[in-house]
Amino acid sequence: MSSPKRKPGAVDPESVPKAVVSRLSLYLRELQHLLRDGQATVSSSQLGQLLGFSDAQVRKDLAYFGHFGHPGIGYRCDELVSAIRSILGTDREWTIGMVGTGNLGRALLGYRGFASQGFRIVAAFDEDPARVNQTIEGVDVFPMMRLDEIVRDRAISFGLVAVPAAAAQGVADRLVAAGVTGILNFAPVTLSFPSGVSLVSVDLATELERLSFSVANRGGEKAEEKPDDPPPE
Amino acid sequence: MSSPKRKPGAVDPESVPKAVVSRLSLYLRELQHLLRDGQATVSSSQLGQLLGFSDAQVRKDLAYFGHFGHPGIGYRCDELVSAIRSILGTDREWTIGMVGTGNLGRALLGYRGFASQGFRIVAAFDEDPARVNQTIEGVDVFPMMRLDEIVRDRAISFGLVAVPAAAAQGVADRLVAAGVTGILNFAPVTLSFPSGVSLVSVDLATELERLSFSVANRGGEKAEEKPDDPPPE
Repeated sequence: MSSPKRKPGAVDPESVPKAVVSRLSLYLRELQHLLRDGQATVSSSQLGQLLGFSDAQVRKDLAYFGHFGHPGIGYRCDELVSAIRSILGTDREWTIGMVGTGNLGRALLGYRGFASQGFRIVAAFDEDPARVNQTIEGVDVFPMMRLDEIVRDRAISFGLVAVPAAAAQGVADRLVAAGVTGILNFAPVTLSFPSGVSLVSVDLATELERLSFSVANRGGEKAEEKPDDPPPE
Repeated sequence: MSSPKRKPGAVDPESVPKAVVSRLSLYLRELQHLLRDGQATVSSSQLGQLLGFSDAQVRKDLAYFGHFGHPGIGYRCDELVSAIRSILGTDREWTIGMVGTGNLGRALLGYRGFASQGFRIVAAFDEDPARVNQTIEGVDVFPMMRLDEIVRDRAISFGLVAVPAAAAQGVADRLVAAGVTGILNFAPVTLSFPSGVSLVSVDLATELERLSFSVANRGGEKAEEKPDDPPPE
C-alpha cells in the first residue's frame, strides 16, 4: 500500500487559486462524513457528485498537491483526509483570539464548525467593560488592555475580528503587534498590514452579491457547481 | 462622452470565476468610497493599489463584462459603480427572508453592510415560540408556519438560512417551495436543491482553513493579494 505522494511544504500557495482551497475544505467535510458512515474508499466521480462538481474538477484540484488516488481503488478516505488536513494546515490545532463579543462574536463563539476542524478559540476580548470578566460558550472574555498579555500567554496564532467597521483596523493593528500570524476579518472594511501577516476577509454583503449575480444573470442554476479555475499546469 | 460598453444580460455567469465576482464587490466598495470622497475618476492601477491587486488584475476582471475605461481618463467612478451594480444585479433592491434568530441570525439582522448594497431583510422566521411575534432590528419575526404566506405577501426573493446544521436542509426546502430564487446558507452543511434555485454557502470554518493554508504554507504574505483566475479568453 503506497502512501500519498504529498510532499509537505512542496506547494507554493501563490500558485493555488483561492477557490481550490475552499473546495479542499468541502472535500474534507464530505470525506469526514463518509468515514463516519464507514466508507473506506471513494472515487473522484462519487466525491464530485456529492458536492455537485465534476470528477475532472476533483482530480484537477487535488493535482495541485500531489497524487492521492490508487489505481482500481480510488481514494482511501482516511488517507485523503490526512493529506488534505496537512495541506490546509489543520493537522495541528490553531489557537484563536476573538475581538468583539456582540451578536456576531457570540455567534462565532458558539459556532460548532470551528473546533471540529482544529480551530480553538481560547480567549475573547471586548472594549465594553460590561461585557468582560465573564465566560461565553466556555471562553473567557478579557478587556482590550490585556490583549498583548493574553495573546502571548495563551500562544494565540490567529485573531478573529468581529467589531464594527470603524474599529477594525485599530483592533487588527493591535493583534498584529501582539504577534498573531493571521487575521480573519468579519468587519465590512478593507484592512491593510505590513507583510508577514495573512489576512482573510469575510464580507457578508459580498456573499449576497454572488447570489444576486447568479440569479440576475440567469435566474437559475446552482452558483456553486461551476468549475472556476485554471488547470494546475 | 461614450457610455460604458456593458450589454446587460450579455454575460454568461458560467464563464465567470467566482473570485472575479467577489472582487467586483471589492471594486464596488472602493469606488463608492472614492465617490463619497469626491473623486470623479480612477485608474486601474490606483483602484488595484487600494485593494492590493495589480492593475492588470483589475482590467482583466472588468474585461469579462465589457470595456469601461476612457482613454486618458481611466474609469469614471459613477459610471463604473452603475455598471458593477448592474452586473452584480444590485441595481435593484432584493428582499430577503431570514430563518433563524439565534446569535448568528441576530448578528445578520444588525449587519449594516446589507442594506447599503441593496439587500433588505423584510421578515425573519423562527421555530421557537419564545422568539416570534417580536421585532429585532426593525424586522418582524414570524413563526415558521407562516413562512409560505409571508414569502408570498412580501415578495421575498432570497432566503437566508441561519439555523443549526441539522435543520438547514428542511428550512431550505421550505424556502424553495415557498418560491425564493436564491439561498444564502450559513449552516455548516452541504445543501442540495432541484435546479432553478441559486445557492451560495458561507462555511465559516472554510474561511479559517483558507487562513491556516496561507499561514502553514508560507507563514507570511497576504492571502488576498493573489490573482487567481484565468484570463477571460
